[in-house]
Amino acid sequence: MSVITLLTDFGHRDAFVGTMKGVILCICPEARIVDLSHGIAAQRIEEGAFILRTAYSYFPDGTVHVAVVDPGVGGERRALIVETPRYRFVGPDNGVFAHVYARESDHRVVSVTETGYMLPGISNTFHGRDVFAPVAAHLALGTPITAFGPEIDDFHGGSITGPTVREGGIVGHVLHIDHYGNIITDIEDSLFLETTREKRFRITLSNLTLDRVSASYDEAAEGAAMAILDSAGLLEIAVNGGNAAQILGVAPGDRVEVDVAR
Amino acid sequence: MSVITLLTDFGHRDAFVGTMKGVILCICPEARIVDLSHGIAAQRIEEGAFILRTAYSYFPDGTVHVAVVDPGVGGERRALIVETPRYRFVGPDNGVFAHVYARESDHRVVSVTETGYMLPGISNTFHGRDVFAPVAAHLALGTPITAFGPEIDDFHGGSITGPTVREGGIVGHVLHIDHYGNIITDIEDSLFLETTREKRFRITLSNLTLDRVSASYDEAAEGAAMAILDSAGLLEIAVNGGNAAQILGVAPGDRVEVDVAR
Amino acid sequence: MSVITLLTDFGHRDAFVGTMKGVILCICPEARIVDLSHGIAAQRIEEGAFILRTAYSYFPDGTVHVAVVDPGVGGERRALIVETPRYRFVGPDNGVFAHVYARESDHRVVSVTETGYMLPGISNTFHGRDVFAPVAAHLALGTPITAFGPEIDDFHGGSITGPTVREGGIVGHVLHIDHYGNIITDIEDSLFLETTREKRFRITLSNLTLDRVSASYDEAAEGAAMAILDSAGLLEIAVNGGNAAQILGVAPGDRVEVDVAR
Repeated sequence: MSVITLLTDFGHRDAFVGTMKGVILCICPEARIVDLSHGIAAQRIEEGAFILRTAYSYFPDGTVHVAVVDPGVGGERRALIVETPRYRFVGPDNGVFAHVYARESDHRVVSVTETGYMLPGISNTFHGRDVFAPVAAHLALGTPITAFGPEIDDFHGGSITGPTVREGGIVGHVLHIDHYGNIITDIEDSLFLETTREKRFRITLSNLTLDRVSASYDEAAEGAAMAILDSAGLLEIAVNGGNAAQILGVAPGDRVEVDVAR
Repeated sequence: MSVITLLTDFGHRDAFVGTMKGVILCICPEARIVDLSHGIAAQRIEEGAFILRTAYSYFPDGTVHVAVVDPGVGGERRALIVETPRYRFVGPDNGVFAHVYARESDHRVVSVTETGYMLPGISNTFHGRDVFAPVAAHLALGTPITAFGPEIDDFHGGSITGPTVREGGIVGHVLHIDHYGNIITDIEDSLFLETTREKRFRITLSNLTLDRVSASYDEAAEGAAMAILDSAGLLEIAVNGGNAAQILGVAPGDRVEVDVAR
Repeated sequence: MSVITLLTDFGHRDAFVGTMKGVILCICPEARIVDLSHGIAAQRIEEGAFILRTAYSYFPDGTVHVAVVDPGVGGERRALIVETPRYRFVGPDNGVFAHVYARESDHRVVSVTETGYMLPGISNTFHGRDVFAPVAAHLALGTPITAFGPEIDDFHGGSITGPTVREGGIVGHVLHIDHYGNIITDIEDSLFLETTREKRFRITLSNLTLDRVSASYDEAAEGAAMAILDSAGLLEIAVNGGNAAQILGVAPGDRVEVDVAR
C-alpha cells in the first residue's frame, strides 16, 4: 500500500483536486489518497507550510505528501521532491516545506526535471495535475528520487517566524487561526513551560491578559478566554464555546507576549 | 474490508480530518475511510446527531462510525463505543448518539478507558486524533468492544426534540436547514400521513400556510413554497429553485404546526 | 479496480455525499470512490457540466462518472447512463452531460428504468442515494448498460454557449469563475491562436483591455490583469495574486471580445 496525501489551496468549487486524483490513479491504481486540506487561503504559502507541519508525521512510513500552494506556477520556480527517512514530499520550491526542512535534519532535495514523469503537454496554470500528481504517483510506485532530476541544495528554505526569548519572557506571534477561531501562536509548549516553570506569568494578546493555562477548553467559563497547550505542541488562546479570533480581533502576525515575574 | 466513517465539526481549513485518517491508516492500513460530513456547525451536537441519523444505516454491516462534535474535549466527558447488531459507533459521551440510542433498541455502550488503544501522549484539545481515530482503527481490526473498557449504562442520552400530537393536529419544530435551504422538520412522514389521512389539513410555518404535499420539487411553480416528504422520512418545507429558510426567515427550533379539519 | 467519481451540488454541510458512498460500498465493496466536486452552485446544471468537462478525461479507462445536479429530482426527468469508449456517465437527463455529448462523438445513451438496480423505496428528493449511486455501483460491478433500460436518442442535449467568429475577431463569454476568481471564457486556445496568429490583437472584458497573452501568472506585475491560455484549453483572464472576477466585477455570461488588427 502506498499512501499519497494532498494539501492545496484549490478550494472545493472546481474539480482541481479530483483531477489530480484521476492522474494518480492512472499511474498508480493502488495508491491510497488522503486529503490533508484544500482550504488553505489562496496562495498563502506560510499557512500551507504550517498545516502540513501539523499533520505529516501522523502518516505511515513511506507516505508521499503533496503540497501545492503555488502562486508561481508556470514561471521560474522549480518543482521539488524532498526525501526524509520516513517520507517523500512533492511540491513547488517556494517555502511550502519550510517546517519540514526545520524539523527533519536528514533531508535530501531533488529538482524535478525529467519530463518523462510528468503528463505530456504541461499547462502553464495547473502543475498539480501535470507535474506534482504524476511525480507523486511514480514515487508511490517505487521510483527512486534520483531518477527525477539532480540533487540541489539551493532550495527556497521559506520563512518561519519564531518567538524571541528575552529577559523576563517571550515575544511570539499569532501563527494561525483555526476553523473554530482558536488562536495558535508560534510559542512551543516546551519553551513556554521552561520559561514559566514555578513562576507567576502573564500572557498578553490584544487587550487580553491571562495568568494561567487551562487543562481543557471547558475548564474556563462559557465565553471566557483561556490559554491552553494545544495538539500541535503550541501555546493557544481560545474562548470556551466561542470564536476567539473574532472576539479578540486578532489576525496572523499579531504579537503575543509572555512575561514572568522576576 | 473495514469501512470507517468520519463525522465532525472540524471544517475544511485545517488538516484535522486528514490527520485522523493518517492515524487510522497507521493502525489499520486496509480501512476504507468515508467522510460523512465535516461541515457540522461548530460544537452543535444536535446537528451532528441528526446528520449521523440520516446516513449511518446506508453503510455495510460492520462499519465503524466515528462522530466527533466535542466541545468538552480534554475535560470530564467520557469516550464511548456504542455497539449495535450492524455497527460500532465511536465518539464523546455528550449526546451525539442520541438518535442511535432512540432507533437501535439493541445497543451496548462501553466507556473507553484502555489507553493502550490510544496514541501515546494524549493532547487536551484533539481527541479525534489521539483517542477516537485509533480506537476506531482497532475496532476495524476486529478488537472486541469489551477490550476497550467497562460497559456502562449511565451514558448521556442526548436530547431529541420531537413533535407533540394534540387534538386536531401536530406541533413540531424545525430540526435542520440543509445545504439548499430546505427546512427539515421533526415530523415523521408516518405520523403526518396517519394524522392527515383522508382529511383536509393546513401546515403553518412562519407566515406560510400550505394545504397539500407535493410529490416532487418541480411540481410547485418556480419560486413557490411547498411541503414534501423527504428522503430522511420527515416533513420538509422547500421552495422550488430557491432557499426556503432564507426566504421564510426560518431557523432550527422554530415551530411548525399541522392542523386537520374536524 | 473500479473507479467511481462523484460530482454534485450537495455541498459539505449534510451527509448526502457520504450516504451515496455507503450505498456504493454496500453493492460494490471494491469501488474506488473519488470526489470531483460537491461545490457546484445549487442547481446550476451548466456549471456542473463544465466542471465535469475539465476533469473526466483524466481518469482511468472504465471509470464510472456520476453527476448529480438535479433540480428536477422526483419529477418527470429520466435517469441516464451515457457510455463512451472509455467511460460510463450516470446522472439526470437535464443537460449535465452536454460537454460529453459534444466531445465524445461515439456515445450511447440508456434511460434507466429497471428498478432492480435501485434502492427499494425510492424517495422523491434524493435520487443520488436511491438511483444514481446504486446504478453506478452495478456498472462498476460489470453490469452492461443495456440491462438498465432501453437505449434512447431523445435525451436532453443541454446548452453550451460557444463563441462567435466574426470578421476581425471573436465574441465569446465568461463560462466560469474559479476558486481563485480567475475568469474562464468559452474561447478555445486553438481558436484564439488561429485567429490572432501573427497579428496584433486586443482582448476586451468589462473595462479591461489586454494586447498580449502571458506565459505564466507571475509574468504580470503583482495585482495586474493578464490573459493566459489555461489548463482546460481556454482563454482565461486572471490577476496576479488577486481575484480577477471581483476586481473586474465580472460574472458568468459576460461578453469577452477578441479583435484583431486588419
